Amino acid sequence: MNFQQIVDIFKNNDNFTILTHKSPDGDTLGSGFALWHFLKNMGKKANVLNSEELPDRYSFMYEGYEPQEFEEKFVVAVDIADPNLIGSKLSQYQQPGAVDLCIDHHISNKQFAKKTYVDGDASAAAMLIYEIIKTSGEKMTDIMAKCLYTGIATDTGCFKYENTTPRAHIIAAELMAYDIDYANVNRMMFDVKSHGRIQAEQQVISNMKYYFDGRCTMIVLTKQLMAQCGADQSEFDGLASVPLCVEGVDIGITVKERHTDYYKISVRTTDKLNASEFCQKFGGGGHIRAAGCEIKGKLDEVVKMLLDEAAKLF
Amino acid sequence: MNFQQIVDIFKNNDNFTILTHKSPDGDTLGSGFALWHFLKNMGKKANVLNSEELPDRYSFMYEGYEPQEFEEKFVVAVDIADPNLIGSKLSQYQQPGAVDLCIDHHISNKQFAKKTYVDGDASAAAMLIYEIIKTSGEKMTDIMAKCLYTGIATDTGCFKYENTTPRAHIIAAELMAYDIDYANVNRMMFDVKSHGRIQAEQQVISNMKYYFDGRCTMIVLTKQLMAQCGADQSEFDGLASVPLCVEGVDIGITVKERHTDYYKISVRTTDKLNASEFCQKFGGGGHIRAAGCEIKGKLDEVVKMLLDEAAKLF
Repeated sequence: MNFQQIVDIFKNNDNFTILTHKSPDGDTLGSGFALWHFLKNMGKKANVLNSEELPDRYSFMYEGYEPQEFEEKFVVAVDIADPNLIGSKLSQYQQPGAVDLCIDHHISNKQFAKKTYVDGDASAAAMLIYEIIKTSGEKMTDIMAKCLYTGIATDTGCFKYENTTPRAHIIAAELMAYDIDYANVNRMMFDVKSHGRIQAEQQVISNMKYYFDGRCTMIVLTKQLMAQCGADQSEFDGLASVPLCVEGVDIGITVKERHTDYYKISVRTTDKLNASEFCQKFGGGGHIRAAGCEIKGKLDEVVKMLLDEAAKLF
Repeated sequence: MNFQQIVDIFKNNDNFTILTHKSPDGDTLGSGFALWHFLKNMGKKANVLNSEELPDRYSFMYEGYEPQEFEEKFVVAVDIADPNLIGSKLSQYQQPGAVDLCIDHHISNKQFAKKTYVDGDASAAAMLIYEIIKTSGEKMTDIMAKCLYTGIATDTGCFKYENTTPRAHIIAAELMAYDIDYANVNRMMFDVKSHGRIQAEQQVISNMKYYFDGRCTMIVLTKQLMAQCGADQSEFDGLASVPLCVEGVDIGITVKERHTDYYKISVRTTDKLNASEFCQKFGGGGHIRAAGCEIKGKLDEVVKMLLDEAAKLF
């Protein structure tokens, strides 16, 4: 399938449902709402669905959006690699054959839709939606450009991570020709933190322990500690990268209490160590620099097991 | 002056001194060392000077660099808007006529050199050095590309700030064709923090006070508090933007004790308020979103004056 064929699908169909993934982020929502604006401007009916409430900071994407009543005829999933990511509230779309088209940038895409366009080299799904809109010859509007820019920026950590491609920069440059107030988007996406998140970070940093000449850090997040700081469970997500921000640290281990005597471990490493190999020792796995595993046992035993394994690295 | 004329200057001269500004950052050093590699590859002699010790994280720029002994014949300043920024250890270059050529991107450039190339629209001086190297037709090497990428990334906050232009993205895309390990550069430049800096941030956040329904935050950094946390004075620089990272905050005020009864105030605002107007009330000034002033008085009086002024904003 090429972009022109996707454009033809959008032109030849109507009454679209656009699915975005659970734990919604800037890329799935930016892709979904850019596509929604695109379809609406072509005179089509479309709804954007998500199984969860959308975080406030994305509200600029869907000002004036109201779900419409219509007989759904075509279902398109954006940035969704696996039907499980559709979320349980939309479980009817997890059935085989429920999704007509999936547009995604995860190489791991499960090919669950009737038709799938995957480009594992794209930094963000929003880059693919950009190409589709450009191919269509339809007008790119400011809000479409802003949604797409947000998708690319958020999935690349504002062009910081390894997955940032030259094409991501070039598309960003082209989108900046529109009125997208990118500095403010970036501030909202990257700088502004909730009070709960700030509390959580404070807790994480002040509870961080250093080992092996400061090359290894460990954070233990007990349920009690998380409750003390009055933050949502979700405020603690994504904190696993914090230990690696300390100068000299090559491996950061986060131990999070799930249930009594049951811990979820997140490991992050610099290019000097392999997080995936480390976690495989405990039956887990993941990427070279970001991996995880689960360990059952008393906290002090779990910590000792992890430190014994870490000791072999130095 | 155009880029070709600058190329001709470099081709027709030798024995260069390249000046970079004090409190060296990624742009002045990236520009300076890219230029040094460029001149060296053309068979020229050149030294890069800075009035201070260079921070470790830039050491990749000058691996194998040793200052050479030669009779200096041409002095070029990069990213230096004002002779004061050359630094007191290099005061001989602050004299009128001491600098032959200045290449800069600050619109405020004082035109102190015999010849000046200023482009106030460029996001970084490194973008100008990029254009000069491309214009020359000389080979762009990996290390030159890495220096220039670092300059652009650091001056734009990794493409996050308002000063990021489409051209900055396009040059970044072109530099990524070289072996520059940009993800690691970005990690070193943006994510990794010294222990002192982390301590300082912890202090700042836990001492932050909220006013006017959380729309205004204030941090008071006394000498005692800064000493307690064992960090360098320099570790506290750049912390003024931290308060604005809190959700709902539109003005962040940092009060830093300089001497007894003498405080330096830094003000940061979102697009909803004007930091410069605020500071003008106290005889200071600056940019719309980042400004400063100095106030003499007892701490509690200074805080009261600031809060009384802030009250008028809400």
